[in-house]
Amino acid sequence: MGAVKTKRMPRAVREQQMLDAAVQIFGQRGYMAASMDEIAELAGVSKPLVYLYLNSKEDLFTACIRREAKALVEAVRAGVRPDVSADRQLWEGLGAFFAHTARTPDAWAVLHLQARTHGEPFASEVAAMREEIVAFVTQLILAAAREAHRDPDLPEREVAGLAEALVGAAESLAAWANATPGVTARQAAATMMNFAWAGLGDLMAGRPWSPPEERAGTQAEERAGTQVE
Amino acid sequence: MGAVKTKRMPRAVREQQMLDAAVQIFGQRGYMAASMDEIAELAGVSKPLVYLYLNSKEDLFTACIRREAKALVEAVRAGVRPDVSADRQLWEGLGAFFAHTARTPDAWAVLHLQARTHGEPFASEVAAMREEIVAFVTQLILAAAREAHRDPDLPEREVAGLAEALVGAAESLAAWANATPGVTARQAAATMMNFAWAGLGDLMAGRPWSPPEERAGTQAEERAGTQVE
Repeated sequence: MGAVKTKRMPRAVREQQMLDAAVQIFGQRGYMAASMDEIAELAGVSKPLVYLYLNSKEDLFTACIRREAKALVEAVRAGVRPDVSADRQLWEGLGAFFAHTARTPDAWAVLHLQARTHGEPFASEVAAMREEIVAFVTQLILAAAREAHRDPDLPEREVAGLAEALVGAAESLAAWANATPGVTARQAAATMMNFAWAGLGDLMAGRPWSPPEERAGTQAEERAGTQVE
Repeated sequence: MGAVKTKRMPRAVREQQMLDAAVQIFGQRGYMAASMDEIAELAGVSKPLVYLYLNSKEDLFTACIRREAKALVEAVRAGVRPDVSADRQLWEGLGAFFAHTARTPDAWAVLHLQARTHGEPFASEVAAMREEIVAFVTQLILAAAREAHRDPDLPEREVAGLAEALVGAAESLAAWANATPGVTARQAAATMMNFAWAGLGDLMAGRPWSPPEERAGTQAEERAGTQVE
């Protein structure tokens, strides 16, 4: 026989292609309606190969949730520089969050909608990711409080509640932004800052939160820091 | 035969007793693990009677969701006086929301957790209730903007985003409050006002939102109104 046309690909590469296809189909059709035939076709492989690699529809869905949860958490962490003021860290983290959920709407649908609406073991997978994000936000609020020398005034329980509120608000807003044509990631992040940082009170008094101008260096950061003090 | 010991009750009353028992079992055990035997026993009726009245486990669960969604929306609406300032309306609405979810933790588990984690048709039932609450909050934010003469500055889309963020934050906080021993409804509502009205910025600057003192009359309301201006 001559040269084989179909290239042999490493298993890891093929698996990622299957997961890419699966996230798209699960996100768009929903877990129940998604067919393994369609996923295999979109991935350009045979259905038995999908079962050989990922075992079952349930395991394939779990693998999608794990991969996308990890990617989301990493995107948020990577978006935040640790050496800037607290409100800027929050702005950057929210910007990274909404940019990621807007760029990967199928993955967000899998995490926020599908994984939570089809019971266990999927709900636990998402709950673990959510806890990690809540812990990250808690640290951010604590850092903001230290920066403003407010840490003795803010009981641990209040901080925990604020972090839960912030994460719930961001989740809700991401679902709305993806379902509403024309809402950009930057707009969603700005709405969240208006809501969570400025608050409705300041917003109504004509004092919205202002995004820092897009310039590097410490000048803008110092300014933002001053606002917080 | 002599007097029958078991009293004949109107169907409507019996049905409510079955729903009471079902909400408790569904909320505590989860939809999948809940048994119709246990629900019938707790309601003090025979299992065939439950099936006769409510048809199936799925229909019984749907009836629970409908009743509890209606009760929650009514509790929030009833808690808000339309003639007070916007921040006070929000405080009252949040107070009513957290009081209701704290008083009926099983019902909140059914709505927030169970109904959303077991696919259709349950998820749609909860989505309808959520839309109603988002619409209510949207009106409240618009009223606040009018009160502060900010309505031309706040685009409709921004208001819609703020309402989604607020509802998401409150849902998340209610789940956390019910899972955290010792958090009262009033504390949860105060945390939400700190988050949503004062904002993290004011909070860090030592300007939390202050609950209006518990006294009737227009004096406190006027004061609260002044704050917003």
